[in-house]
Amino acid sequence: MPPDPETRRSDCPISFALEIFGDRWTLIVLRDLMLRSRQRYRELLEGDEGIATNVLAERLKRLERRKLITRKRDPADARQFIYLPTELAVSLVPMLVEMIVWGIRTGDKEVGSEFLARFETERDTLIAELQAKVRKDADL
Amino acid sequence: MPPDPETRRSDCPISFALEIFGDRWTLIVLRDLMLRSRQRYRELLEGDEGIATNVLAERLKRLERRKLITRKRDPADARQFIYLPTELAVSLVPMLVEMIVWGIRTGDKEVGSEFLARFETERDTLIAELQAKVRKDADL
Repeated sequence: MPPDPETRRSDCPISFALEIFGDRWTLIVLRDLMLRSRQRYRELLEGDEGIATNVLAERLKRLERRKLITRKRDPADARQFIYLPTELAVSLVPMLVEMIVWGIRTGDKEVGSEFLARFETERDTLIAELQAKVRKDADL
Repeated sequence: MPPDPETRRSDCPISFALEIFGDRWTLIVLRDLMLRSRQRYRELLEGDEGIATNVLAERLKRLERRKLITRKRDPADARQFIYLPTELAVSLVPMLVEMIVWGIRTGDKEVGSEFLARFETERDTLIAELQAKVRKDADL
């Protein structure tokens, strides 16, 4: 279980980042919100990794408290909410891309060869395009 | 507690990466091993974040099992071990650098302004230099 966000272990920026997303699930939720265009609780719950509903609810609260997402009324159903990434989340895309590339290169699954090829020839464009897509989806 | 490394939640490279270092401590240990030139158990235990000895021991075992570090006899004291990053760990440096930069920009501490300035003007050189230093320290 991640610690209270107000607690600081040290002044190290890596430690600071891990206090926000140093767990198995937070970046999975951000991946779904940003790279898989999921906005609704139910859609997030249906991810491939089988996140538990209490874990998802806790991570969404924490992401909102840390200003990585905002929660809005669902325009399609006012009894529901949608979750949208903020600019702070968009600024995590370069790190997520590096993590994806490391996972593709290191894992033993045959996935991501097209992504990897694009990364190797035009990293900056790839990141800019992903960030533009996230901003467009989230109306930023 | 991280899962057994043989378990896969999905084929997603982000999920794969998080199964290795998706917790509050693994990347802190890798930071100390790679960016702070610590090689001995005692040095790793004395990090700023106050890692517990059982957590450190478990993370070192996992990093060794996942081939991110190797364990060798300490040339200065044959009853002890030193822990050295492998090329697989060196390949994590770009992601760690992005995490550092995000943490510097996002955190409220006045740290890392020099690192950030170098990143913004010469990212690739900065990463290459860090990787060269890690390889040199680890005799890779």
